[in-house]
Parts: sequence; C-alpha cells; structure tokens
Amino acid sequence: MSDKQNSYMQMALDYARIAGDRGEVPVGAVLVDSRGEVVAVATNAVEELKDPTAHAEMLALRLGTKKLGAARLTDCDLYVTLEPCTMCAAAISFARVRRLYYAAYDTKGGAVDHGAKFFTQPTCHHAPEVYGGIMESEGRDILQQFFKNLR
Amino acid sequence: MSDKQNSYMQMALDYARIAGDRGEVPVGAVLVDSRGEVVAVATNAVEELKDPTAHAEMLALRLGTKKLGAARLTDCDLYVTLEPCTMCAAAISFARVRRLYYAAYDTKGGAVDHGAKFFTQPTCHHAPEVYGGIMESEGRDILQQFFKNLR
Repeated sequence: MSDKQNSYMQMALDYARIAGDRGEVPVGAVLVDSRGEVVAVATNAVEELKDPTAHAEMLALRLGTKKLGAARLTDCDLYVTLEPCTMCAAAISFARVRRLYYAAYDTKGGAVDHGAKFFTQPTCHHAPEVYGGIMESEGRDILQQFFKNLR
Repeated sequence: MSDKQNSYMQMALDYARIAGDRGEVPVGAVLVDSRGEVVAVATNAVEELKDPTAHAEMLALRLGTKKLGAARLTDCDLYVTLEPCTMCAAAISFARVRRLYYAAYDTKGGAVDHGAKFFTQPTCHHAPEVYGGIMESEGRDILQQFFKNLR
C-alpha cells in the first residue's frame, strides 16, 4: 500500500470512529477517483436514518454516483473499514467499482472472503480487484471496542 | 394465494410496466403491513436516479422504513415482480421482512433460488418465508417484452 492509499484507509477509519461515537456500528467508507480525488465519504448510518440499507458503502456509492452524475463508478476505488456484506458487495459490483480495499475481516456477515463470496458467484457480473486486511487490526479494534462498550 | 395477495402482486406488475415505459428495467415492488395496508410501492429507478442501488425492493424498503419510522419491517410482506438479487435479498434480511413473494425467476442475477441463495447462507441472520413464481408468467413476459423492444 502506498502512503496515499494508507491515508484513504486512515480517513475511513476516522469516519468509523465518528460513527461509533454517534451510536452507529463503526464502519466508514471513502470513495476515490482515478486521480486520487476523494469523491465521497460516508459512515454506517442505520440508526440515524432508521434505514437498514444505510451501510457506509451504500451511502458512499450513492453519494458518489450522485456527485459524478453516473450510475457507474468505473474508475473509482472504495476504501472501507470492514469486509462488505452481501448487500454492499453486490452494490459495489453493480457500480462497477475498480478496486476494493477493506480493513477488518467479517466472518459473521462478510460476503467477499466469507459467506456468499459474492464476487466469485456466476451471478456476479463485475468483480473489483480486492485487497482485504489493509490496516486490519485498526479496523477490528474500533469494532471490538464499540461492542465492548455496549455490554 | 388469496385474492388480496394476488392483487398486491398485480399492483407490483402494474408498477413494473410503468417503469418499463420510462426506460427502466421493469421491476415493481409493493410493501404491505400485517393488516394488509400498502406501506410503500416502488419501481426500479436505476436510470432515473443514476443510482445502481435503486432497485425496486431497495426503494420500497427505504420508503417503508421511513414511513414507519423503524429500521425493521418485522410484520411486513414484500411483493416483487422479479427474484431479488444478492443486494436486495440481503437488504430484505436486514429489514426483517416477514414474507417475500416474487413473480419471475432470475437465473442470471437472482440470489434467492439461484446464485448466492442468500437466505440459506450461514451469514444470513434472518430469512423471510419465500413464495417464488407467483404470477411468474406475467412477471417474465413484462421483462421479455422490454428486452425484445430494446433490440
């Protein structure tokens, strides 16, 4: 990972912490275009929006497509602090995201390297390049601390 | 299927046709609460919204949770004209939808009875009761006609 790539993941981790402080499961996402410009940042906002689809990735993709005025994000890369779930993995595929970088692994709900492994399914028609476990321990610590504080 | 259940699917099929007339892949969805009240209707709106996540099911779930002020739609049933994809199947699970009725099967992109078969995955933590193939030929005809006209 280059310094620049690390800085995007660091930004996603910072946003995850902000979400956690608001009582959301702390997940953050940063969408970056091919020139390295940040197109969108988002956090999980399921509680705030009372919307079960308001995962960080979904919001980043929706903000990104809105900002770029296109339903496809062909030249964009997505940085997210947790392995995407089935819903988000499919959305990432539909949006034609170029590269996916994620931090913590999610054995219970992930769908990239666990569960449905959506990008390997014959019903998946576009798979991004995937780089999992980037700054993995930081992503995991934020989540573990959040759930520890809840108990 | 009761007459009432058929009427909800008929409504979803009518909305699918409206979407097709607007140049969207014709899929419609109707969300109904346990008293039989229609909570939300939606069509696929990927083109109009330039949003790859704007499938009929996603919009119906988001409208429904907004209307009911709750992130969970525990007592609600969803009628949709096409077998949900991986993204939508996961969203239906997150929203805790009670029953899913769908019309046409989708061998290429479906994730209920095809592909990821999400509701049977260990990473799926809530599965609705599923009734597939309801008014299947009508759902399929609308889609086939749409793609025939495109060519």
